[in-house]
Amino acid sequence: MKNRIVVIGSGNVAEAMCRWIPATGHGIVQLFARNTARGNHISGITGIPFESDPAKIAKADIYIISVSDKAIGEVSAIFDAGDAIVVHTSGNCPVSELSDSIKNRGVLYPLQTFTAGRELDYKEIPLFIEAENDNAYERIKALAGTMSDNVHDSDLSSRRKLHVAAVFVCNFVNHMYCLGYDFMEHHGLDTDTLKPLIRETTQKMLATGTPCEVQTGPAVREDYPTIGKHLETLNDNTELANIYKILTESIIIKKWGILKKILRK
Amino acid sequence: MKNRIVVIGSGNVAEAMCRWIPATGHGIVQLFARNTARGNHISGITGIPFESDPAKIAKADIYIISVSDKAIGEVSAIFDAGDAIVVHTSGNCPVSELSDSIKNRGVLYPLQTFTAGRELDYKEIPLFIEAENDNAYERIKALAGTMSDNVHDSDLSSRRKLHVAAVFVCNFVNHMYCLGYDFMEHHGLDTDTLKPLIRETTQKMLATGTPCEVQTGPAVREDYPTIGKHLETLNDNTELANIYKILTESIIIKKWGILKKILRK
Repeated sequence: MKNRIVVIGSGNVAEAMCRWIPATGHGIVQLFARNTARGNHISGITGIPFESDPAKIAKADIYIISVSDKAIGEVSAIFDAGDAIVVHTSGNCPVSELSDSIKNRGVLYPLQTFTAGRELDYKEIPLFIEAENDNAYERIKALAGTMSDNVHDSDLSSRRKLHVAAVFVCNFVNHMYCLGYDFMEHHGLDTDTLKPLIRETTQKMLATGTPCEVQTGPAVREDYPTIGKHLETLNDNTELANIYKILTESIIIKKWGILKKILRK
Repeated sequence: MKNRIVVIGSGNVAEAMCRWIPATGHGIVQLFARNTARGNHISGITGIPFESDPAKIAKADIYIISVSDKAIGEVSAIFDAGDAIVVHTSGNCPVSELSDSIKNRGVLYPLQTFTAGRELDYKEIPLFIEAENDNAYERIKALAGTMSDNVHDSDLSSRRKLHVAAVFVCNFVNHMYCLGYDFMEHHGLDTDTLKPLIRETTQKMLATGTPCEVQTGPAVREDYPTIGKHLETLNDNTELANIYKILTESIIIKKWGILKKILRK
């Protein structure tokens, strides 16, 4: 069944939905958002009609609400969904974050980092779904199945855990890149020389799937003279030195945990 | 000029040298190491003759010493290099870490993470070189030029900074993967669902080269309700909660620095 879909929101997830869903054969009949600049921009890229007047939200089979967590409740109450399905795309909010007036509520949470302007391989993005009733569940599952080969049932508790894990492997990883790049730039060094190392670190992890067991570097070797030299090198940067110490300690703690696991095998 | 090379050591860097150099047209005439198990293993993979008796270290044009930092001094003194070039491969040690008895000392530091058993695209790996005299410099530069398209002059101070940056973008990144994976496993969640996110985070960084400006997630949005929910989810894991707090704060601090930079433009 080809669904008529309205996407609500103008952030990176809403933009991704507008790029993603048309390729599935379902039709996005409208993008609704209050931010007219971003709304018009996404409309310009995707050709999807944009609307900013709540009174003119289109009739649809499924409404996808991709707004900030704190706005989900309010936004979901400004239109009459009737018998349509309404989902939000947040990893952190319960189904009940959507207005009580909606009959068929659910969640469609994509586990990915979305950046304005970037095209992705959408079919591989994991989608975590939940619904309040069987009808909504079947309809959301059918939609999700056309969007991704990687659809999972979920509940709030597991989505929240996924969301935390995502912060570690995405936002905090990116922050390590940021700290490394800033440090290099501060010292007039060419950050491009880090790229093969960055590529290999992630490729190795994706190939093995066992990051704790393939760790390298001074911390996991407990090479204290090198760690000492690194801290000397960082002695004019308290923040970086502090993060260096805490993560080095954490690697050493984890190592002994891993060794214990291996010994128990 | 085709060099006769002896590689000394049996760790991951020594193994990488044994995989890397034969493809350049130079010949590794011997792998010398004290660890016979690892030495025989690398010899078995690469066909390079292995020797563990210091009295039988072969004559060569270039000796590459890839041992732990603390062993460089001792190992470089156990043989007579004569007029040959001797380099170590450490990012953290001065040229003078090599024995004073050696006439032509230098450094050949590869900025990459090497893992036993993994083949790499060696030509892209940055090599940072240094030498004590012009003759050694020219010979090391010529060798490095056949090994990589990415050769740079360096001194101890810049190598140490590169090495620290590498810890952030490699070891600490991998540790974030490790913490995320462990957390998922602890809660019975499928770690494979993180892979598309991990891949995209790094691809985005490599494509843009501006990690600080493409950061996403609750910290950079200063989304305190979500941060609060994450800390609730982590409330039974003090170590993870502590790292979460410190890195979240660091992202927020960095963000205001970036905004200031943009405003000054």
